[in-house]
Amino acid sequence: MRSHARHTPAFTVEEMTHYLEDVFPEVMAKGTNMVVEAVGYGSCIIRLKFRAGQLRPGGTISGPTMMGLADFSIYVAVLGALGKVPLAVTTNLNINFLKKPEPADMLAECRLFKIGKRLCIGEAMIHSEGHEDPVAHATATYSVPPR
Amino acid sequence: MRSHARHTPAFTVEEMTHYLEDVFPEVMAKGTNMVVEAVGYGSCIIRLKFRAGQLRPGGTISGPTMMGLADFSIYVAVLGALGKVPLAVTTNLNINFLKKPEPADMLAECRLFKIGKRLCIGEAMIHSEGHEDPVAHATATYSVPPR
Amino acid sequence: MRSHARHTPAFTVEEMTHYLEDVFPEVMAKGTNMVVEAVGYGSCIIRLKFRAGQLRPGGTISGPTMMGLADFSIYVAVLGALGKVPLAVTTNLNINFLKKPEPADMLAECRLFKIGKRLCIGEAMIHSEGHEDPVAHATATYSVPPR
Amino acid sequence: MRSHARHTPAFTVEEMTHYLEDVFPEVMAKGTNMVVEAVGYGSCIIRLKFRAGQLRPGGTISGPTMMGLADFSIYVAVLGALGKVPLAVTTNLNINFLKKPEPADMLAECRLFKIGKRLCIGEAMIHSEGHEDPVAHATATYSVPPR
Repeated sequence: MRSHARHTPAFTVEEMTHYLEDVFPEVMAKGTNMVVEAVGYGSCIIRLKFRAGQLRPGGTISGPTMMGLADFSIYVAVLGALGKVPLAVTTNLNINFLKKPEPADMLAECRLFKIGKRLCIGEAMIHSEGHEDPVAHATATYSVPPR
Repeated sequence: MRSHARHTPAFTVEEMTHYLEDVFPEVMAKGTNMVVEAVGYGSCIIRLKFRAGQLRPGGTISGPTMMGLADFSIYVAVLGALGKVPLAVTTNLNINFLKKPEPADMLAECRLFKIGKRLCIGEAMIHSEGHEDPVAHATATYSVPPR
Repeated sequence: MRSHARHTPAFTVEEMTHYLEDVFPEVMAKGTNMVVEAVGYGSCIIRLKFRAGQLRPGGTISGPTMMGLADFSIYVAVLGALGKVPLAVTTNLNINFLKKPEPADMLAECRLFKIGKRLCIGEAMIHSEGHEDPVAHATATYSVPPR
Repeated sequence: MRSHARHTPAFTVEEMTHYLEDVFPEVMAKGTNMVVEAVGYGSCIIRLKFRAGQLRPGGTISGPTMMGLADFSIYVAVLGALGKVPLAVTTNLNINFLKKPEPADMLAECRLFKIGKRLCIGEAMIHSEGHEDPVAHATATYSVPPR
């Protein structure tokens, strides 16, 4: 697998957090649930804090909550590689649901497979904190506008 | 394409609405945004009422909102074929984003390709009301528990 | 759903067949198995002639055979809309296998959901000739080079 | 990520090769192109030997060739976990094409995300031998028959 270790991330964790608060205030509003834990060149770890409101009957976290986490976190990995590209848009997202999440924080570990001029493609592996088996795996494609 | 015309839907629109209000109160709470417009045997039309809170910067409706609509509406089509199967779970969802939605209600037209004992597979075509071109297309697989 | 009826297809069936024989001789070689049955603006019907060599144990047609048919036929629909774009490349393909194919010709009915300057996205519904239920459904994205 | 290290693979490389030659003679016929390089519990490495016949115009390996490799290799990972389940069938496959393959052998590295009683879900990362960047990434779902 490609190592991006030789490339410098476009943001530190703190810079990314501030940038996301600017462009996605509804997702990142203080007191809410997405936290940038790590950022690399084409990779990141995003924590979704557990809140009772996400619960489905049976005490599990809803599918759309996981889809939103996957979409957001792979987008952050794109930003980590390309810098400020606010108009990059998701064109495809595919998600496999693997097991029911625990009522706990979820962590999405993302990395990009391809960092292109026109398309970025990557994955998010999602698991419940403190539990080894993943709860969902997603891949997504982002179309990057010409600069 | 398979015509399901000879099969009776498991619910009327009114019965489906009441059932969904029971099992998904957080999605269907009165005054909120999902409305069952039509139900058939393995098909349905779901309206997502426009609300400013779904807006992303630029005035468009967010990707996760469309993913949630796709997931929910294909699930309703499963219920329309199989009746009350509250434990059916999404195992895969694939969505292609086609164009930016208008700030308007969205309609998801769903039909199932396969109605099996263990798996149901179907699609949702989503468009903004009053606009012809679709904004997103999704397919999803539901695993049906043994009865 | 978008109707493309007002647009003229970029090829007739005969022109498309000749063009494909030129650029994909290995797929279209005389005596082999892909036949263009219809072409529209962003749509087509492709027949895959049944040959015993595609059979898997149990007498069914293999998954990769259906994936190849889906990929090829959606590409033909792209050509039907855009004309000769030999460098368009598949960037994503998602396929759901619905039932075992019969030992018979298969027909892929394709249409594009999006015909963009940079991306075309469409679907193929595949069924065995003479059988109503579909055997597979695929969606695919093609990246179109700048002209 | 889940480590399957504590589980014993259901086959050695040699046993897997013999079994595949039995059940997929058309894929594994001596002198042809699929080689089992490694097998674990829910994981494997499969080599697709380069042959000129797979080439598309421009000297690259075709998309369907990579789709067939992905489907086959994830199936081998299922066998590596579950043993002889000849009736497991692919229900979904999603593939992202990342860059043009070189005219060289391709290696698919597979691992399963989920090993369930009814469904197995896994990924294949494909790269050209001697080249670091991946050429394709696929995920697939297999439905396992009741035993």
